[in-house]
Amino acid sequence: MASIRVALAQLNMVVGDLAGNVERVLDVLPQVADADLALFPEMTVTGYPLEDLVLKSSFVADSKKAVEEIAAASGSCALVVGFADTGPQGQVYNAVAVCHEGKIVGVYHKRELPNYAVFDEARHFSPGTKPLQLFEIAGVRVGLAICEDLWIPDGPIEDFVAGGAELLVTVNGSPYDDVKFSARQAVVAATASSSGRPVVYLNLVGAQDELVFDGGSMVADPKGNFVARASRFFEEIVLVDVEVPDQPIVEADLEVVPVSSPVLRDERLTPPIVTPLSPEAELYTALVIATRDYVQKSGFSDVCLGLSGGVDSALVATIAADALGADHVHTLLMPSRYSSDHSMTDAQQLADRQGLGSQVVAIEQAHQAFHHLLAPTLGDDLPGFTDENLQARIRGVLLMAFSNASGWLVLTTGNKSESAVGFSTLYGDTAGAYAVIRDVYKTRVYDLCRWRNEQEGTPVIPENILSKAPSAELRPDQRDDQRLPPYEILDPLLEAYIEGDRTRSDLVADGFEKELVDRVVRLVDLAEYKRRQTPLGPRVTTKGFGRDRRLPVVNRYLG
Amino acid sequence: MASIRVALAQLNMVVGDLAGNVERVLDVLPQVADADLALFPEMTVTGYPLEDLVLKSSFVADSKKAVEEIAAASGSCALVVGFADTGPQGQVYNAVAVCHEGKIVGVYHKRELPNYAVFDEARHFSPGTKPLQLFEIAGVRVGLAICEDLWIPDGPIEDFVAGGAELLVTVNGSPYDDVKFSARQAVVAATASSSGRPVVYLNLVGAQDELVFDGGSMVADPKGNFVARASRFFEEIVLVDVEVPDQPIVEADLEVVPVSSPVLRDERLTPPIVTPLSPEAELYTALVIATRDYVQKSGFSDVCLGLSGGVDSALVATIAADALGADHVHTLLMPSRYSSDHSMTDAQQLADRQGLGSQVVAIEQAHQAFHHLLAPTLGDDLPGFTDENLQARIRGVLLMAFSNASGWLVLTTGNKSESAVGFSTLYGDTAGAYAVIRDVYKTRVYDLCRWRNEQEGTPVIPENILSKAPSAELRPDQRDDQRLPPYEILDPLLEAYIEGDRTRSDLVADGFEKELVDRVVRLVDLAEYKRRQTPLGPRVTTKGFGRDRRLPVVNRYLG
Repeated sequence: MASIRVALAQLNMVVGDLAGNVERVLDVLPQVADADLALFPEMTVTGYPLEDLVLKSSFVADSKKAVEEIAAASGSCALVVGFADTGPQGQVYNAVAVCHEGKIVGVYHKRELPNYAVFDEARHFSPGTKPLQLFEIAGVRVGLAICEDLWIPDGPIEDFVAGGAELLVTVNGSPYDDVKFSARQAVVAATASSSGRPVVYLNLVGAQDELVFDGGSMVADPKGNFVARASRFFEEIVLVDVEVPDQPIVEADLEVVPVSSPVLRDERLTPPIVTPLSPEAELYTALVIATRDYVQKSGFSDVCLGLSGGVDSALVATIAADALGADHVHTLLMPSRYSSDHSMTDAQQLADRQGLGSQVVAIEQAHQAFHHLLAPTLGDDLPGFTDENLQARIRGVLLMAFSNASGWLVLTTGNKSESAVGFSTLYGDTAGAYAVIRDVYKTRVYDLCRWRNEQEGTPVIPENILSKAPSAELRPDQRDDQRLPPYEILDPLLEAYIEGDRTRSDLVADGFEKELVDRVVRLVDLAEYKRRQTPLGPRVTTKGFGRDRRLPVVNRYLG
Repeated sequence: MASIRVALAQLNMVVGDLAGNVERVLDVLPQVADADLALFPEMTVTGYPLEDLVLKSSFVADSKKAVEEIAAASGSCALVVGFADTGPQGQVYNAVAVCHEGKIVGVYHKRELPNYAVFDEARHFSPGTKPLQLFEIAGVRVGLAICEDLWIPDGPIEDFVAGGAELLVTVNGSPYDDVKFSARQAVVAATASSSGRPVVYLNLVGAQDELVFDGGSMVADPKGNFVARASRFFEEIVLVDVEVPDQPIVEADLEVVPVSSPVLRDERLTPPIVTPLSPEAELYTALVIATRDYVQKSGFSDVCLGLSGGVDSALVATIAADALGADHVHTLLMPSRYSSDHSMTDAQQLADRQGLGSQVVAIEQAHQAFHHLLAPTLGDDLPGFTDENLQARIRGVLLMAFSNASGWLVLTTGNKSESAVGFSTLYGDTAGAYAVIRDVYKTRVYDLCRWRNEQEGTPVIPENILSKAPSAELRPDQRDDQRLPPYEILDPLLEAYIEGDRTRSDLVADGFEKELVDRVVRLVDLAEYKRRQTPLGPRVTTKGFGRDRRLPVVNRYLG
């Protein structure tokens, strides 16, 4: 049985950092030198996704120079490196180069361009059209494709198989969501078993703006069993000896590019098969990675956030501490005249348990000043919403002053349930650089807190924060469930409407109460204008707010 | 010579307002009843663009019901009505129905889907694939296409011509930019003269989120001369008797759908040929329409904004007054300790001249309160930027309090030069619902003010506002040109980098100073995070910030 040693270089690339990405690849070449074939993530040298950076001519030219620099450093191990290539009529392709012994020996252009959900590849790339080739590496004929190519029936994978491929390889920039990993495993296994070829799947790790790439690179044997699986979310280089069955194989009728001859090896490597993560573990890790990469890739090290004593800010502070280290997380406690004592003691206890910096700045003085300024025109008693928003905005101003003076990024703490129905104050609690849990429903916020508390002897989040009723504390005796149904009812309705794309009549047929459906759908639709002005945050569901869900602001359609 | 009477129904539709749009069409049917063919804008019943509304199954189903309602009301005049159609595999098409005598007699699916700049049609629609047909209306064989179809060489237009069309018709939702109208005229004239067929071009008017549709519907004769041109930006119904030459015409080899027979008419109508607008007139009108439609289509009537005494807020207030009426525009004068006397007198004079409501709220008390709150941690002297941003944010909080208490939308007043380089305060001067001049460079702001002042006997904008040096007045003796080059130098550089997509080396080759290029390009790139959180505003150039320019926030590429 033939065998090829494949290195899965599951790396974290940085968008736009061509020099840094080249260096990252060159740094790991010694670790893959012993392999026949080393795979790097989709768009290796440029990072992914690039959005309109691809429309800059200089950027694409620089991308080609970057891949040539890597090719020049290549040796007996064939390197598969992603880059942006150009065609004769100015087309731009999402491409990989096969680099060997100092040269680029072949290039593949991605054929299937995703243009749905968070993806805009039809805007940025032309689909590959040049005739398919196989690369004969270590004597094995390899069909090489990119990400979406694997998912399309009658796409290049089937053509590779019919054309004589003995091994199928895809390099990917496939973002995390809460059901994606099992879907990926299923398609890899099905491709392997239906084709009778081993399949190697290499994925990016790290975060870029709204997207978190979760790695989990894998190798399936021709029966669809996994013989290697890399860790999720973290950089790792896995070497695998992939067995290629001596089965009756289709004669190659695609062009075969000779690259390298078989290498005889006595030993067989035993690659890791990492155990799948629990739903809470993968979600929590995704949020940690997203926060770390947003902050650090933006060139910052420290963050600040307001701690209210509630569960949302408690979770965000904890994620930030896990992402950046407790000494890089600065919390502000900003009580108002309506804040309860327990809020401040709970918040302080949270900061103390985790060793977070904390400052207390009571907002009363600014609150009074604004009342004085507004009284001559708006009267002594501000309308309820006006006064509630005012308090949230004073806190936003304070946080931003700390941010401006200290160079800390502000993290916002709103969850998806709030963001969906618009229960937030623009320029108040939505003010900040990164919205860590904006794609996490409130019920999941509790799940994550409880899961995180189980990870250590001492729970990092005080139990009182988890057991009390949620309140914004912007007026006396306020509780979330005075304006909204309990989150156990609200969240499934929101999820059905947003992720599930159910219509109003669908939702009623699903068993939700009609009056509630009408009210909640209307709230979600009307809050679009707010969501357009809120910071980026990681997408962790199958439909996040942001690039994934592009609704008009002026919109009279009723659900 | 044959003739067909065509009605150009240049209407303003509302996104998502299916019932309202149907009613709008039914309302004008008496005005087009005497025509053989009446054209309504692209996506008539749904409004345009729809973005992800199209992904809602209920929406597409409702769109089909809406067009059927119009068809039921159709008589001898064939109505061309845009809607979202579906295909057997769940495809969604950007479609028009030809409605006649109570029925839909044919449907065309847009074939060329724009997926660049502000357009995402490949995300939302499938391209039409069904065989082309001609509609024989009043005995004239009509080739009927939608918007982008007209612009693509070797597209459906050429097939219509080769297949026997005697008249070419397109319905459009073509947004305004500062060079678009002449481009449209050129393509219409060229299509007519190269094909030897008259061309009828019907465009939408009104605004939707970032886009302004500027009408200017037109008819070109077979030599490419314009025989009718509707007004720009405003609703209008124009009836034109289009002469169809008795030339040797290609035999129809496309299917011909018989609709109606020739109608003998004694008189020939004399349609308007509206004179083109000056660049300032069309730009100013675009901003007025955008503001009016954003506010009113959102269900509001009144706006408020801060008047600084500077040129940007003066222009925005004037546009708002022209859009909504002076009594719907409420201004706030919010002097700080650094505001000059002339700023307040200039601002007050502007409000008085135009009859705008005005309130003065000095921010000193809130400014002091924040200093007191921040002093224990940040010290008595706040760093410069921190204190400047603080003042801007206090003003933002005050404006939002007025907005919340009074139901007025806040207009922001930042221009494109500021937005480009990030000279603005998030949650301060960027706080609001609509950014009226965010796509207008500072030098153009002056042009527009001067142009507007020429339109009436008494200049509405006090001359002192136009003649003094620009300053944010956030510290003593501040002037814009202390941190930036003069706008006469900055704006062309910004325009070359943003609209022109020039790279840094291109810009130096263009003659811009290298140090300036490096500094300005870096400022533009770094400010992306701010632009992501600023309100919508009308796109009036060939590349606006927003849907048109989608750059990553985390991005290490240096221009």
